Amino acid sequence: MFQFMTSSRIIFGEGALVNSLSSLNQFGYSVLLVTGKDGTRAEPVISYLKQQGMRYQQVAVHGEPLIAMVEEMAAMGRKFRPDMVLAIGGGSVMDAGKALAGLIPNQGSVYDYVEVVGRNVPLQAKPLPFIVVPTTAGTGSEVTKNAVLRSAQENVKVSLRCPDMLADLAIVDPTLTYGMDPVMSGYCGMDAFAHLMEAYVCGDPNPLTDMVCEEGLRRLSGAIIAACEEDDPRARADMSFAAMLGGMASANAKLGAAHGLASSLGGRLDAPHGLITAQLAPYVMQENVLAAREAGRADVLNRYRQLACILTGRTDAEIADGIAWTKRTLERLALPRVSDYGLCDMMFEEVAEDALLSNSIKGNPLPLNKDRLLSILNQICTCRLNDTPASTLDDIEG
Amino acid sequence: MFQFMTSSRIIFGEGALVNSLSSLNQFGYSVLLVTGKDGTRAEPVISYLKQQGMRYQQVAVHGEPLIAMVEEMAAMGRKFRPDMVLAIGGGSVMDAGKALAGLIPNQGSVYDYVEVVGRNVPLQAKPLPFIVVPTTAGTGSEVTKNAVLRSAQENVKVSLRCPDMLADLAIVDPTLTYGMDPVMSGYCGMDAFAHLMEAYVCGDPNPLTDMVCEEGLRRLSGAIIAACEEDDPRARADMSFAAMLGGMASANAKLGAAHGLASSLGGRLDAPHGLITAQLAPYVMQENVLAAREAGRADVLNRYRQLACILTGRTDAEIADGIAWTKRTLERLALPRVSDYGLCDMMFEEVAEDALLSNSIKGNPLPLNKDRLLSILNQICTCRLNDTPASTLDDIEG
Repeated sequence: MFQFMTSSRIIFGEGALVNSLSSLNQFGYSVLLVTGKDGTRAEPVISYLKQQGMRYQQVAVHGEPLIAMVEEMAAMGRKFRPDMVLAIGGGSVMDAGKALAGLIPNQGSVYDYVEVVGRNVPLQAKPLPFIVVPTTAGTGSEVTKNAVLRSAQENVKVSLRCPDMLADLAIVDPTLTYGMDPVMSGYCGMDAFAHLMEAYVCGDPNPLTDMVCEEGLRRLSGAIIAACEEDDPRARADMSFAAMLGGMASANAKLGAAHGLASSLGGRLDAPHGLITAQLAPYVMQENVLAAREAGRADVLNRYRQLACILTGRTDAEIADGIAWTKRTLERLALPRVSDYGLCDMMFEEVAEDALLSNSIKGNPLPLNKDRLLSILNQICTCRLNDTPASTLDDIEG
Repeated sequence: MFQFMTSSRIIFGEGALVNSLSSLNQFGYSVLLVTGKDGTRAEPVISYLKQQGMRYQQVAVHGEPLIAMVEEMAAMGRKFRPDMVLAIGGGSVMDAGKALAGLIPNQGSVYDYVEVVGRNVPLQAKPLPFIVVPTTAGTGSEVTKNAVLRSAQENVKVSLRCPDMLADLAIVDPTLTYGMDPVMSGYCGMDAFAHLMEAYVCGDPNPLTDMVCEEGLRRLSGAIIAACEEDDPRARADMSFAAMLGGMASANAKLGAAHGLASSLGGRLDAPHGLITAQLAPYVMQENVLAAREAGRADVLNRYRQLACILTGRTDAEIADGIAWTKRTLERLALPRVSDYGLCDMMFEEVAEDALLSNSIKGNPLPLNKDRLLSILNQICTCRLNDTPASTLDDIEG
């Protein structure tokens, strides 16, 4: 038995934003508008609100949504009493908006509702209508039911989670990603890859998430380089589509060790989430395959083989080809290294221990012990992508 | 640009019904329970409602939902004032339940809201929460936003349609289809086929419906015989899944001439909708291919070729193989013929003219003129499936 939840209405395509603004009217007359610090992409929305004579208040999210920041915005929002929340931006903006839509009609503090560091109490009142417009092709937050917030005190990222927090309307317009710089496009794209890849190989997939992952991985593998390097419109559209599918997949299957480690690292480093999961991905794949070999888990190995076939577009691909595709793609995208953000060996023990307690790691295709997590952390710090010891890759042939 | 809407929450799998009854509590305390005339499959629901001390009123739908019947049930429902509507049954029951959830909070008559024969006014008040449980694998109504009602006066089937009419919760439990007789399983299954097939080749597909159709057609083609003839549990699950995907596809792409003709025939004959679309399917495919040849529409022909590859599981399949698969499957399922329900040549002119006015036919991959529709009607009346003139099939080779 499985459950599948997604935004009940998605509008996708070039020009979708401008062409669907009239849909806002069905939700009421006043809007809490959540944007990034550069609100340029929100201009068509603001013009529309003005032209319609709708009330609105704009709040800008700088950097990642800290719990304290969201708390303050929610207090402001409760005074403004909006009919709806509209978030237009990247993952941080979307998650802040989603959290605000949930928090405003409820009286408690953020700590009452978040997992891990909070009381994890369900929201009592139904969230406000939530309209979401991604300006990156990465997180897939437009179709997930959780908002990832950062606790500065506890050094971790935690989720505020509620089925009712699914957006009432997701407007995915690939033109909003045109012109984004190649490095940021790269780690957003590899964030989407990590969702699709971990959901595909996870311990609890289902026929709907499999369908979604296969299509998403196929599109992403064919488009990521052309989208990042050439800003090719068709590739940008494929990336927006794949990122949305990655959101659907991660919201309805499980994830794995890359996200477990990323939630632990994300609280400690000021590196973008996408960058962290991207660099973890190939080493997590590698350790999982080695662990599956040891444990004789043919089912897991088969999945990794299918993954390799999809990524390479070859029906005879071997497991190692999928890992090689991932490393080659990361190399080509020339992302900054996580170690540039201050990751060092002294943190490893703690990071691994926290990761073992994370929600995401429970979805890993098979249990990884602390030593394997430490090995992954070591590799992302020390290896250049192209000098993985040949012996390790040999182990994975076939 | 495309839009995709579906039930925001789907629970799927063997035992899903019994295991998710506690989800009802979130919608309130009183239930309008819509069942078929044999309410056996609803027993677990009734036991649960009693055990929880919830108020409920049961209404049974006999045959197809006539507008007058739904009007009366809505009046009854307004007196009972339920918090939610739960429908458990086949397509007629689901559509009646969906219409009731929409109508009860609104004051108008059915004719205010339905298309074609009514005023087609949008529903003002938001529908009641709607929970739907299919007991057949066919219509996919659990994930569509329209309810098909039959107008006895005007001899047509028309839709009551509203985005808010999407079920709040769809519980798809393949065990509810176990033991269904082979013929009924057959035409329900071919109803799902017709949704997937017409949505796949239609003039307005999108990347999400393509993904859904390809997966649905793959599962259906591998499962339909084993489900109908052997009541094989795994095949039954595949059929329930494919039928749900067929609903998603038809709700978000267009359909075509088979559904256009079926809506016209459906008002005139007492034959199940699935039976009508099933028998139309191969002849509509055939006429569309001939018309596409004439019009030099390589795009349409390519789609039919892809369809053939999916249905046969062979990458080198030709268009004719897809049509042959459909005819062979119908032959094997040994369904009653539409002519047994009183279809005769005298009706053809009128049926074809009404079909040309239908909503569905607008989605056909290319326009079909009245002569082509008459030819389709002639063929379902006169041909045995296995004696299609060889010349016609020859035309479609390659």
